Formats: sequence, C-alpha cells, structure tokens
Amino acid sequence: MTVPGGGAVVVGVDSGGSGIRVAVARADGGTVAEPFVSREPVRTGDRGIEARHLLEQLVPAVRRLLAEAGAGAPAALALGAAGMATLGDDLRAELPAALARELGVSRLALAADAVTGYTGALGFRPGAVVAAGTGLIALGTDLSGWRRADGWGHLLGDCGSGAWIGRAGLEAALRAHDGRPGGSAALLRRAEEVFGPVAELPGRIYPRADRAAVLASFAPEVAGCAGGDPVAAEVLRAAARHLAESAAAVCPPSGQPRLAVTGGLLKLGEAFTAPLAQELTRCLPHARRTTAEGDPLHGAVRLAGALAAGPLPLPQDPRLLRVTVGSGTLPGTAGNRPSAPP
Amino acid sequence: MTVPGGGAVVVGVDSGGSGIRVAVARADGGTVAEPFVSREPVRTGDRGIEARHLLEQLVPAVRRLLAEAGAGAPAALALGAAGMATLGDDLRAELPAALARELGVSRLALAADAVTGYTGALGFRPGAVVAAGTGLIALGTDLSGWRRADGWGHLLGDCGSGAWIGRAGLEAALRAHDGRPGGSAALLRRAEEVFGPVAELPGRIYPRADRAAVLASFAPEVAGCAGGDPVAAEVLRAAARHLAESAAAVCPPSGQPRLAVTGGLLKLGEAFTAPLAQELTRCLPHARRTTAEGDPLHGAVRLAGALAAGPLPLPQDPRLLRVTVGSGTLPGTAGNRPSAPP
Repeated sequence: MTVPGGGAVVVGVDSGGSGIRVAVARADGGTVAEPFVSREPVRTGDRGIEARHLLEQLVPAVRRLLAEAGAGAPAALALGAAGMATLGDDLRAELPAALARELGVSRLALAADAVTGYTGALGFRPGAVVAAGTGLIALGTDLSGWRRADGWGHLLGDCGSGAWIGRAGLEAALRAHDGRPGGSAALLRRAEEVFGPVAELPGRIYPRADRAAVLASFAPEVAGCAGGDPVAAEVLRAAARHLAESAAAVCPPSGQPRLAVTGGLLKLGEAFTAPLAQELTRCLPHARRTTAEGDPLHGAVRLAGALAAGPLPLPQDPRLLRVTVGSGTLPGTAGNRPSAPP
Repeated sequence: MTVPGGGAVVVGVDSGGSGIRVAVARADGGTVAEPFVSREPVRTGDRGIEARHLLEQLVPAVRRLLAEAGAGAPAALALGAAGMATLGDDLRAELPAALARELGVSRLALAADAVTGYTGALGFRPGAVVAAGTGLIALGTDLSGWRRADGWGHLLGDCGSGAWIGRAGLEAALRAHDGRPGGSAALLRRAEEVFGPVAELPGRIYPRADRAAVLASFAPEVAGCAGGDPVAAEVLRAAARHLAESAAAVCPPSGQPRLAVTGGLLKLGEAFTAPLAQELTRCLPHARRTTAEGDPLHGAVRLAGALAAGPLPLPQDPRLLRVTVGSGTLPGTAGNRPSAPP
C-alpha cells in the first residue's frame, strides 16, 4: 500500500456512458501513473448498473496499476458513476465486500458522478457546480447536505443543456418552414445542411436510441447562427437563464460559495458564455465564479484521498454519496490490509 | 357495383395507429352497412407502411362488405393513412395494381390521414383543420394547394398537443420539486399521485416506446389543476396559442374559410377550450369556426364518392393526396369493372 516515494495510495474511478477511467494516486494527491481507460461502458440491467460487469474491468485494472506503482492494497477507493442515484443498488450491495476481497479495500466511497464532478471542480468547499453537456444537472452543498436541481433528461428537463438548445433550434427551423411565428430562416438553412430535407428530420431523430445526443449535435449550429439571428440568440440566452436558475436553486444562499460550470456546453463560445456570465451574476450575485479545478476522475481521487485520511468532509446521502468503512469479508492477511483499519 | 337500393358503391378506408376501419357506402353518401373495424395496425417496415399487410386485411373485409350489400366492384376507393406522406412509398407503388386486380377498383385515392380528416371535417370547402390529440397537425387549403403546419412529433414540435401540455406540466412539477422558478406545487402533487415519487419519473417515461402517449396522459391533470393554479393555466393558454398559430399558418388568408379543431384535446374541457376560442379569434378573425362534420373514415368515404363522380374537387399533392385512375393490370372481365372506366 505504499509506493517507492513513500505514503499510501488511493484509487479513483469514473464510470459513465463512454466507459470507465481508473487512476491510482498517492493519498496526498501526487500522481503515480497514467490512468487506465476503458471504452466499454458498464452494462445496466434489471438491477441497475451491473456490479459484476464493473468488477470484471476494474479489478484487473487496479491490480495492474498497483503492481506498476509497486504498491500494496489501496488505503481507499472512490467510485463516481453516472446513474448511481437511481441505478446504483447493485453497486451499493455488492461492491463493499467484493472490493475488500479482491483488492483489500476497506474504505470505500460510492458517489453519483455529479458528486465526483463537484469534488473535482471545487474540492471540499461549499458552493454549486453545474455540469452542462448533452444534459444538465446542478449540485450544491453547504457541507451539511446536498441539493440537486434538474438532470431530468431531455424530455422532462435538462433545461439549458445541449439537447435543450439543439431541440429549440430545430423547433425554430421547423417554425420557419411551416410559416409559424418564432421561426428562423437561418436555422432552417443550417438544419437542412446538417440533416437534409426537413421532411426527413423526424425519421432521422425518433428511431435513434441516442436522440438526446442527436439533438445536442445541433447546439453548435445554434451558436453559429446567434451572431446574426435574433431567434438563435434568444435560444442561447434562455438556455443561460435556465442554467443559472438551476445553479441558484442548489447554491448556498449566503456566505461566499464557489460556483463552477463544467462540461462541453462552454465550448459553444462567446455566444453562450457571454449571456451565461450575465445570468449567473443576476441570479447568484453572492457566489464567486471559478474555473473547475479538475474533472470527475480527479474528484474521485480527491474523495479517496480524503477518505484515506479520515472522515469525509462532505455530507453523506443514501443516493448521492455513501461511505463504507470496514467489511466483515476482509481477508485476515495483514499484508493485504490498509494501514489504518477502523 | 350497384346495391339493391340502386346506385354505385364506394369504399373508404382509415388506417392508423390503432388499426384500420373500412366502410362501404353508396356513392351519393348513403350508408350501406356497418364499417369493418380491425384492431391490428398495419405494419411499418423498411419500405414504410407495408402494402401487403394492409391488403391482407383490406381485401377480405371489402369483399365481405360488398357481398353483404349485394354490390359488385366499387366505383372508387379512398384510403387515408397515418404516415402516408413520409412512409407511403410502398402503398403508392403497390396498391393501384393490387386493388384493381383483387377488387376491380380503377379509381383510387391515397391520402394522408390529415387529408381524410380535413375532408371528413369540412368536405370540399376551403379552410383549415387542426387535428389535436397526442400530437398536433394543421392542414389547410384554398382548393388550389395544401398547406401543412407542425405534426413534427413530440420532440421537434406538435406544439400545443396533449404530449406538449403533459410534458410542460411535468416540467413545472419538477421545477417545484427542485426549487427552480416556474414550478407548480399543485402539478407536483398530481405528478406524484399519478406516477409515484418523482425520482422514479424518468424511469417511467424514457424506456417506453409510447413516450408521447405517456406525456399526453398527464394533460388532463394539467387541465384539472388550471382552475386554481396559474402555472397550469398558463400551460393551457400557451398550448391554445400554439394551436391557433398552426391554424393561422395554413388557413387561406382571405375569403371566409372554415376552421375546425378535431381530436381528443377538446375533451380537456373549458380550461382549454376557453383560451382556445380566444386565441383562434385573435389569430384568425376572418375564419368561421365550425364543428367537424365527420371523422377521417367519413372523409375517406367522401373522397371516394367524389372520385366516383369525376375529378376530385381537392388539389393533388405527391405526398398528401394522389389519385390513380385506370390501371394496366385491370382484369378484362366486364362484370368486374366499374361502370365508368376512364
């Protein structure tokens, strides 16, 4: 559990729609090796995210990384997973015993990816983080509890997200096609260049399982039109307003909370980031906006590092963040146990 | 082709998501027998709506209805089908020859269900018809051409439809849950009574193939809340505005066009129909609002009756309404031919 440079090691894991990433680091934060990256997303079945499928990838990867680092059992492991809140029952049931048995892990944090995103962005300080890409979710804490806003998906919410912007842009294109109010001839031209004749647009979107991503793929076209098209510009301003409303709903209302926006939506450029800055200032005048310090994998490593040192400085929550310390199934071999068993 | 009471018979067919309905009537409009109703919707495959699957149900049904009426080959047949515009290629390619061969039909009209809906509601007069249920589509004509608005489905449009109202209501419920602006505590209570805890709402909607219908199932709850809840009332007013905008986009801009709204949305009651009447008057002051005279099956029978009498008094359109008169594959048997071959 120590590396040649000295000190315990910890493991951070980020599991999402594009696969899993695993990092081994020194508990004090120092990097040990390049992360392991798998492009195979963990399967979701009847019991939610399948613990067994995760373990098949995770255990060999951690063993290899530990061996390369010359380290023994990690002092702690933190996993952030997309869907943990609603689909994490199998993970919560199986991982504590399995990771103790296979890797000698006795300090484990299972977190929603929004929590590792928060921790990666702001560490253990109070504030709010909005993760805005294809979807949109805001998470905030005053360090005594969590608040969540939106993240309901492209049909029920994710207001202001890439899917939301793209969908609104396509609706404006079709309004122009039909001669209804609120249409944009510029967006209609872009929609036809991207998707072909509009009569075929429904057939290109409804049959696909990744509808939200297809809608989001049109968001950059909306941003590209916003300079000369008031309808496109208003879509982006409304998106910025929705994002700021979600941030305000979760941010501690007093003090000097930090505020970070993460995710691909910032790549839309000035046409989005300019109204976003205005709306954030309007809705959260007391919050101090900062750039995210790191990504969700970095947040998982931070969680694991803090967990190795003692109690987590973040509030636990049955769905968002659950910590397990110790396990009845821990092997008795001393050399395979962490330095500070509970 | 004549019935005991005298005169030629015609066939009207309505094919949609809940099955097909077939009616045989006298060409002058008189009823001959009860319609045949099948609860088996025609399959849609790689080539669109499958002509062969339609024929398997349609041909025996027409033969039986004709036999019961003591009639010979029908003077004309009109089919209105959901999806005809975009998924009707197989029908347009196969039906003229097949119906001539199997039923001796040489005068055939293939129409989008919006066209049979129009004809059922307003006959052959200029105006606009809005079909508003789970989805929403507006069709209008000045008798020289057709105009269509919306009908793009629940992700891209169908603005003001049942799915649109239900979706907006659920978004307002989740806004209240999150503490975002625009929320409705009343809609949140209704959503929890109907769907259970909101945390499970995404799981109850996204995996389903009939997502639009599930969203639309919440529209009556929105109408039920509108009396005491300004957010719900505003959802219904916005829906009425969208519906009226679609009607205005397709209605002839001058003269005294008729205007009819059909479909299940009117069942939402006064909370919807009161703002709808206001918005229609505002957007289409020149149109004369009427109750639909009949349904799409009635419209198909009307189309067939007009086609038996001569050229259709409605504009043809490659996707919306195509008429075929005569066929190289017509059998030579005189007794099996219509009275007025071209």
